[in-house]
Amino acid sequence: MGPQLKANLCGKLRDFETEIISNRSVVEHWFRDMFAKYKPPFYSSVDLRNACFKIAPIDTNLFPAGFNNIGEDDRRSTVQAFMSAVERHCPHAETVLIIPENHTRNLYYHQHIGHLHALLSNVGLKAIIGSHEDSLCNLKEFVFKNLEGLPTSVPIKKVYFEKTGLYVDGTKPDLVLFNNDFSSGIPDAYRDLTDSQTLVPSLDASWAIRKKSNHFKLYKETAQEFSKIFDFDDWFINPINRRCSDVSFKEKKGEECLVKNVEEVLNEIKKKYVEYGIKKKPFVVMKANSGTYGMSVMTIRESSEIYRLNNKQRKKMSKNKEGITVKDVLIQEGIYSFETVVDYNAESVAEPVVYLVDKYVIGGFYRIHSEKGLDENLNTPGMKFFPIAFEDSCQLPASSSDPDSITNRLYFYGVIARLATLAAAKEMQR
Amino acid sequence: MGPQLKANLCGKLRDFETEIISNRSVVEHWFRDMFAKYKPPFYSSVDLRNACFKIAPIDTNLFPAGFNNIGEDDRRSTVQAFMSAVERHCPHAETVLIIPENHTRNLYYHQHIGHLHALLSNVGLKAIIGSHEDSLCNLKEFVFKNLEGLPTSVPIKKVYFEKTGLYVDGTKPDLVLFNNDFSSGIPDAYRDLTDSQTLVPSLDASWAIRKKSNHFKLYKETAQEFSKIFDFDDWFINPINRRCSDVSFKEKKGEECLVKNVEEVLNEIKKKYVEYGIKKKPFVVMKANSGTYGMSVMTIRESSEIYRLNNKQRKKMSKNKEGITVKDVLIQEGIYSFETVVDYNAESVAEPVVYLVDKYVIGGFYRIHSEKGLDENLNTPGMKFFPIAFEDSCQLPASSSDPDSITNRLYFYGVIARLATLAAAKEMQR
Repeated sequence: MGPQLKANLCGKLRDFETEIISNRSVVEHWFRDMFAKYKPPFYSSVDLRNACFKIAPIDTNLFPAGFNNIGEDDRRSTVQAFMSAVERHCPHAETVLIIPENHTRNLYYHQHIGHLHALLSNVGLKAIIGSHEDSLCNLKEFVFKNLEGLPTSVPIKKVYFEKTGLYVDGTKPDLVLFNNDFSSGIPDAYRDLTDSQTLVPSLDASWAIRKKSNHFKLYKETAQEFSKIFDFDDWFINPINRRCSDVSFKEKKGEECLVKNVEEVLNEIKKKYVEYGIKKKPFVVMKANSGTYGMSVMTIRESSEIYRLNNKQRKKMSKNKEGITVKDVLIQEGIYSFETVVDYNAESVAEPVVYLVDKYVIGGFYRIHSEKGLDENLNTPGMKFFPIAFEDSCQLPASSSDPDSITNRLYFYGVIARLATLAAAKEMQR
Repeated sequence: MGPQLKANLCGKLRDFETEIISNRSVVEHWFRDMFAKYKPPFYSSVDLRNACFKIAPIDTNLFPAGFNNIGEDDRRSTVQAFMSAVERHCPHAETVLIIPENHTRNLYYHQHIGHLHALLSNVGLKAIIGSHEDSLCNLKEFVFKNLEGLPTSVPIKKVYFEKTGLYVDGTKPDLVLFNNDFSSGIPDAYRDLTDSQTLVPSLDASWAIRKKSNHFKLYKETAQEFSKIFDFDDWFINPINRRCSDVSFKEKKGEECLVKNVEEVLNEIKKKYVEYGIKKKPFVVMKANSGTYGMSVMTIRESSEIYRLNNKQRKKMSKNKEGITVKDVLIQEGIYSFETVVDYNAESVAEPVVYLVDKYVIGGFYRIHSEKGLDENLNTPGMKFFPIAFEDSCQLPASSSDPDSITNRLYFYGVIARLATLAAAKEMQR
């Protein structure tokens, strides 16, 4: 017997799920209308946390990595979804240039780019990997295991800018797909690119520009509109958020703002816990308002902890990916992860990561960490990935209406993830 | 070891396939452009014949049955493709009414409708089965095995017409999906339906109106344009066709036209066989110019056979589905089926049937017949269906460029099927 997933829902959230399962035609119709109004991102991934009584997105990534973790059975619908995405963003594309992160030594990332390259080739595009970074170009190629598990490679080409176009090997690709979120700032040359090439996602999606607080504001709006249809409190699927935009962890600047907001969020959670009879200790997660890779993320259980941060913690919170100083901070309601994966009698905390291409849920997997508690960030070294029944379907509910059917649970996850991607679509449109 | 498929390609057709596999970005780009110009049919199925040196569609059905034969692994991408189809034809649909054939006793057909109902429900539509035929409505429900193999049922509702709308149970469905090809004529009430309801396919697709000769004329145009890109003779993928529109098999009327055209087609095939060094005996297939179910189809090896048709043969050729008299006849180049399925040491002739939803190849299976020869119609009682590697992918070529890889073969089948569906799209647009 393989690893077992424990993913219960309880209380009113279970009723909410039941409503959604039995009204999926309403759900799908609503998404169809919404995505007609807001152009879905080319691709995205959404981190969810399931606390049994609450399930919510905690991060929406518009430069998703991890396509190598998508199950084999999901490959066909992934290619089909990429076909839709290409049709929507750049119907006449023949060539796609993938701009990866400058990760020279992260072999998982190489594996991911290799798979992304293969998937886009299967869409029928001439796919090229290119970078402006010498260090990456010096690698010459990404070596990875192909979809059949055999070692293969794709070359890394040097890109160059001419007038307002991006070129590689003397040609100007029709479609430029960024898998680099330019956390440390968008190079000027990229800003000068004109409309004659399609850039996806738009560089406004870069963490140099994008703010999580803005995303979650739009997510809140989206979750409220959706929950209203079924007459449920949006809190069941929507985390509470506050922002402090002028903080320095090193210089102990902006601590009052952090303390005040941590207290407010903890009190709001307490009220909800009382309202719904939830006997848990509230906590918040403090994280950089821009950025990814689970860096600069910290669990806070009491507001006074802010004053007691030690040097190591301050250092961790001050620097983001690529050494960017964190000034802008999001205080987010902490959502327990009561989802666990049991493997060889060891139980690890797990959080689902759902992948979308265009408006389609194409698959997902669990991020698990055996050394982390159920109120901690799992996106840290030591995490593992665990493909699970998602393969079967997270687009289709089961024929039965059993709310505990794993197919229905995954459909529900897909709904929440689509709400987050819809919020990102609104973000990009504005 | 399960049943084995033998599906070789030889001669120049193998080179053609190799060209297509290695230029799939050109192929996919071309289809993307074409289907932007010509709206793809909601759904379709294409019968192919593979003679090793030639592969071609012999029938394109716009009211496909057999969704129950689609493999389980194809389900997700099928639902996703139906989502695209709904978005393209009727984005605001909440309810779909499926109008089936009036088959009261064909349990395979009930199974098909059950699966079609389940697939459209999974798209997120409220799916209803309805009919204007009392005999079908008296059944009250279709009983079938659901996607998990468990017995289940869906009710059959009586539809009624009010002013210019089609109603069921007091509501007017947004989308009406015909799975009834109205071979015996489109009831007047259906003709009066106005634009306030979306009807797919358009009733012009009915066999009461549609002509195979017209389809194959447009297929020829399409195949020529496609073959030209790769500088191959379109004959490798395009059957020769002639038409006699005023025939009566019973009254021996129009025999001269049949004889003349059979001779011409046989001569044209001979020329091609000489040109490409093919040492086979040419034959033609005589079939009703409208209609389906493999009825009124006959293999002719010499033009003189026309004069020697016995009463049984004449009777078979004169009556089509629902007893419609055949007057309009298509003389089509016969394409050997050198594809066989070997099961328990018995070898059966097989022809691939490829299914499309919107512009996406969603799966397929083999129609096999152990009692038929390689130059005969397999769509007759005694046929069996045989799901095969199609499941793996017929949208994606393999990573390797081996022209004999089964994945690449199925991709090639998908390309030919898409050409036929594109011809049908042109048909519907005109």
